[in-house]
Amino acid sequence: MTTQHPPGTDRLRFGADHVPSAGRLRSWLDFSADAARRDFEDLAGLGLDHVRVLPIWPWIQPSRSLIRRRGIDDLLELIDVAAEFALEVAVDLWQGHLASFDLLPSWVPARHQYGVRTDALVRTGLTAYVEQVCRAVATRANVFAVTLGPEADHLRPAERVDPAERDDRAEQDVRTAELLAAARAAAPRLLTLCPLDGAARHGPGQPVTGGPGGPVTVRTRGYGRIGAREDPLGPAATSHADYLVELAAASSADPLRPVWLQEVGVPRPEVPATEAAAVRLTIDQVAANPALWGITWRCSHDTDRRAAGFPDVEGEHGLFTVDRRRTPAASQLASRIAELRARRALAVDRPALVCDLGPDTPPGHRTELAPGGAFHAEWVRLRRAGPLAVLPAHRAEDGAYLAARRIGTVLART
Amino acid sequence: MTTQHPPGTDRLRFGADHVPSAGRLRSWLDFSADAARRDFEDLAGLGLDHVRVLPIWPWIQPSRSLIRRRGIDDLLELIDVAAEFALEVAVDLWQGHLASFDLLPSWVPARHQYGVRTDALVRTGLTAYVEQVCRAVATRANVFAVTLGPEADHLRPAERVDPAERDDRAEQDVRTAELLAAARAAAPRLLTLCPLDGAARHGPGQPVTGGPGGPVTVRTRGYGRIGAREDPLGPAATSHADYLVELAAASSADPLRPVWLQEVGVPRPEVPATEAAAVRLTIDQVAANPALWGITWRCSHDTDRRAAGFPDVEGEHGLFTVDRRRTPAASQLASRIAELRARRALAVDRPALVCDLGPDTPPGHRTELAPGGAFHAEWVRLRRAGPLAVLPAHRAEDGAYLAARRIGTVLART
Repeated sequence: MTTQHPPGTDRLRFGADHVPSAGRLRSWLDFSADAARRDFEDLAGLGLDHVRVLPIWPWIQPSRSLIRRRGIDDLLELIDVAAEFALEVAVDLWQGHLASFDLLPSWVPARHQYGVRTDALVRTGLTAYVEQVCRAVATRANVFAVTLGPEADHLRPAERVDPAERDDRAEQDVRTAELLAAARAAAPRLLTLCPLDGAARHGPGQPVTGGPGGPVTVRTRGYGRIGAREDPLGPAATSHADYLVELAAASSADPLRPVWLQEVGVPRPEVPATEAAAVRLTIDQVAANPALWGITWRCSHDTDRRAAGFPDVEGEHGLFTVDRRRTPAASQLASRIAELRARRALAVDRPALVCDLGPDTPPGHRTELAPGGAFHAEWVRLRRAGPLAVLPAHRAEDGAYLAARRIGTVLART
Repeated sequence: MTTQHPPGTDRLRFGADHVPSAGRLRSWLDFSADAARRDFEDLAGLGLDHVRVLPIWPWIQPSRSLIRRRGIDDLLELIDVAAEFALEVAVDLWQGHLASFDLLPSWVPARHQYGVRTDALVRTGLTAYVEQVCRAVATRANVFAVTLGPEADHLRPAERVDPAERDDRAEQDVRTAELLAAARAAAPRLLTLCPLDGAARHGPGQPVTGGPGGPVTVRTRGYGRIGAREDPLGPAATSHADYLVELAAASSADPLRPVWLQEVGVPRPEVPATEAAAVRLTIDQVAANPALWGITWRCSHDTDRRAAGFPDVEGEHGLFTVDRRRTPAASQLASRIAELRARRALAVDRPALVCDLGPDTPPGHRTELAPGGAFHAEWVRLRRAGPLAVLPAHRAEDGAYLAARRIGTVLART
C-alpha cells in the first residue's frame, strides 16, 4: 500500500455537459449569453466546478478555409459567462456524431466518406480549426481542457472498420497524435485529450488508443443498455462507471495516471423513478476508485421534446428539465458532491481480478471485457463485496505497480 | 403558323443566381444586408429583372422541429434589399447538393441515406419548412417564384437509382407533387416549380418528371463539358442551351408551355478568353426560341479562391469577380439584354427534327437524346442553318401543335 495519491484526486472534480435548455445545441446558431447565464446558474447551484461545452464544428467552419470570427466570439462569450459562476470549462472541439446526428461540415463528406482524420485536405482544414479555437480559448483563464472528438468508434471511413487492419489503426493514432500536438502547441497551458467511448475499452476495431499526457478519459453511455437488460439498480448497472474506470486504469502504462469519467448519466426513460438511487449507487462506487480524477455528467438539461427526431435515450437525461426544474438526479448529485467534497474515502488494499489485457492485446480481443461477458460477470459478482481492481496479467507480480494502484490481493479467475 | 405567343415571352426575363461576393453562400451564417446591397447594385446595373436566391436549408431548419425565425428574417431582408433595386426574386427552397457540397440538415442523413423526398419523417420536416418559407416570402410583392430543389438526379436514395424501378419514380413524382401542392397552398400567388437539371432531359433513371403549371424549367451546366470536348465556341457548345429548351418544349404536352432556362453560364476555366463570344452565341441562339420565357444566369459573383475545396468549375463563372469587377461575360450579357428588350425576333416557320420522344418513352430511352449521341449530332448539324425544333414523333401530323410551336417543315431523320 502506498500513500501517494494520483494527481488531482485530492479534490474530485464534478461537472456537466452543457446542453442548452433553450434550443439545445442548435442554439449556437442564435447564441444568447442570457440563456447561457440561466443554464450556468442552474449548474453552479449544484456545486459543480466545471462545464463541458460543445461548439458545433460545421457552423464555425462552414467552408474549409472559413473559420467564422463570430462563431469563435460566441464560444468565448459562453466561456466568460461560465466564469461569472466560477465554472471552469472544457471545450469539446468537435463532435461529428452527436446524439444520433452527424454534425460535420459539408466539406467533410464531400471528401471521402467520413475520413475525418485520414483525408489529407480534411486534415488541413481540421488542423486549422483546432489551432484557431485552441488559441482563442486559451486566452480565457477558466478554460482548463480541450478535447478532440469524436469518439474513436465513430466517423471512421466505413470501409475500414475491419479490426484486422492494423495500418488503419496505426494511421489513426498518428493523425490523432498530430491533432493533439497541434492543440498543445496552440494552447500549452491546457489539458488536451482525445476521449474514448466506453466501448473503446472492449469493442473490436477501435483504432485510436488515446494519447499521452493528462488523465485518461472514459465515456460511459452504457448505463441504460445494461440497466434495461438487467436490473436498473442492480450491480452490473450501478458498477458500470467504476468498471470502465478500472479498465481505463488497467490499460495505462502509468499506474498513477488518473481517469476522467465523462458522459456518465442515467437516461430517465431507461431508469424510471429510480434515477436518484441510480445516481447515488453509481457515484458512491466510482468515487472510491483511487484512479478517479473527475466526473462530467451527461448532461445539464433535458432535450426539448419539441426538438424532434431524437431517440428517447437522448431526450431525458438532463440534470434539469427544459423549464429548468431540478431533477431527482440533480438533487442527488448535489448531495454527493457536498459529501465527497467534505470527505472522500479512497479504497485501500483492494483485491484485483486478473485479466489478459496487455500492451500487445489486439483490440479484437477486448471483446472479452465487454459487459455481459464472462470476465465482466465475474468482476461484477466480486465487486459486490467492495472495491475491486482490474489487473493486467503482465503486472500481476509488479509490487510497485500493485502498490500504486492500491491493490492488496491478487485474485485468480475462477 | 400561329400568332399566339406563349405567355410571358413578350418580355424575355433575365436574372442571375445570387452567389454573394463576400463569403459565398456561407455568408447566410453572418447575413449582411449591406453586402447584399452591393451585390444587387452590381446585378441591377446589368439590366437584370430578377435574382434567384438560395437560402441554406440546414441553417434555417437545423432540427426537424426548429425553423429559425432569424433564418427566415434574413431571407426576407435579402428580398427587401432586392426590391430596393427593382429586382424580383425567385426563392430556391433547398439545394441539397450545391456546387459539389451536400447541404442537408443533420437530421436528414440521420434518417435513411438521402431519402429526402421519400422518408416519412424527413417529408414531415421538409413539408413544414416548405410551408413556412413559402408563407413568409409570399408576403413580399417582389417575390414571383419558389423552386423546389434539388435537381431530380441528386439526393435520391442511393440504392434506388436503377431506372427500371418505376415504382420509385412514381413515388418520387407523388412526393414532389405533394411538396408542390404544399408550396402552392402556402403561396398561391407564386410560381411553384420543381426544376430539372439538363441531364434530366436525356439521362437514364430520372425519377421526377416535373410538375404541372408554370414554365417548364431546364438547368444547363453542360456548356463547359461540351466545350471542353469540342470547340468551346463550336456549334454543339453554343447551341446547347437552345437544345435543352427544345427538349423541354418537346416533352411538354402543352405546346405553348414556356421554358425557363436556369443555371446557364460559361465557366471561365473551360471557356478561357472567349467568354464574351460564348455568351453572345448562346443567348442569340436561344433567345429566338419561341418557347423561351426567361434566362437565369449562373451566377452573380465568382467564388472567392480563399473558399477552399471548390472544383475549378464552381469557382469562376460569376458575372462579377469577388472584388465586384464586371467580367466580359457580364458586359456581353448586359448588351444582349438591352438589345433583346428593344427587339426580340422569334423564330417562325422553323423546321423540326423528329425524335422518338413521347409520353410513354421510358426514361432510359432518353439517352438517345444526350449530347454526343446520333440525334444530338444531327440536330447540331442542322441547327447551324438556323432555328430548329425537336418534334415528338407522335405529334408530327398534328397541325395545331405544329403551329403552336411555330414549326413549318418536318424533317425526317437521315
